Amino acid sequence: MWKMLETLPANQSVPLRDVLTQIPWNADGLIPAIAQQYDTKEVLMLAWMNAQALRETLEKGRVCYWSRSRQQLWRKGESSGQIQELKEARFDCDGDTLLLQVDQTGPACHTGRRDCFYNLVQGDRVVVDQPVLIDPEALYGK
Amino acid sequence: MWKMLETLPANQSVPLRDVLTQIPWNADGLIPAIAQQYDTKEVLMLAWMNAQALRETLEKGRVCYWSRSRQQLWRKGESSGQIQELKEARFDCDGDTLLLQVDQTGPACHTGRRDCFYNLVQGDRVVVDQPVLIDPEALYGK
Repeated sequence: MWKMLETLPANQSVPLRDVLTQIPWNADGLIPAIAQQYDTKEVLMLAWMNAQALRETLEKGRVCYWSRSRQQLWRKGESSGQIQELKEARFDCDGDTLLLQVDQTGPACHTGRRDCFYNLVQGDRVVVDQPVLIDPEALYGK
Repeated sequence: MWKMLETLPANQSVPLRDVLTQIPWNADGLIPAIAQQYDTKEVLMLAWMNAQALRETLEKGRVCYWSRSRQQLWRKGESSGQIQELKEARFDCDGDTLLLQVDQTGPACHTGRRDCFYNLVQGDRVVVDQPVLIDPEALYGK
């Protein structure tokens, strides 16, 4: 499938259902998904999906991941209210990564920061360069 | 380390060498790295790094991955000339993903497309919506 898509002329298409059967899931049955804010193009986070999470995300238009720590479906925002509305989904050239364009409500990160990539390498230091927007205790009611 | 960084006030820092010892490598000793074009904010690709690839990338300022298919260091552009100059590197909140801001020379994708995410889900179809910029045969001399 993926080799065939490599050589497909631009704007040609194939059925989604055929593509979904050809995803090279990893040993845990997962695929990484990058979430990018659709208008500002900030990369918000990377999380993982299993087949059920991907199917639900595409059907409902609201992003659902697989939580590796909790080993259950993770409907992004179900606890915090910080949901991700799906704007667009793309597979990469070998089908083993997803890029999602989303509209993120509030902070994407469980730390209450806008995105998860706040640990910036700067010379021989790592600097936390993003403020906490909402206290995690307020987000999760802890 | 990562829990400590979560609560570090903005603009505080820790030594990079300490962070590098705390990366939660996966079972294969790898971490996923997202490459984003630093000025246009296009997400170009996702690939993987081992400790040596990450160290080389940070030291030389030119992106080096670990090729899972070839099981060797993959100095991006070594065959094709389509290199990635590193502009910035960030770790996410739990340290298991890298976000790289890069300056990509020409196509990032081995198919000769600008980026790898050309397989767009559109309703019940998957559409190839990016043109090939350079014939892969020209890139790799096959």
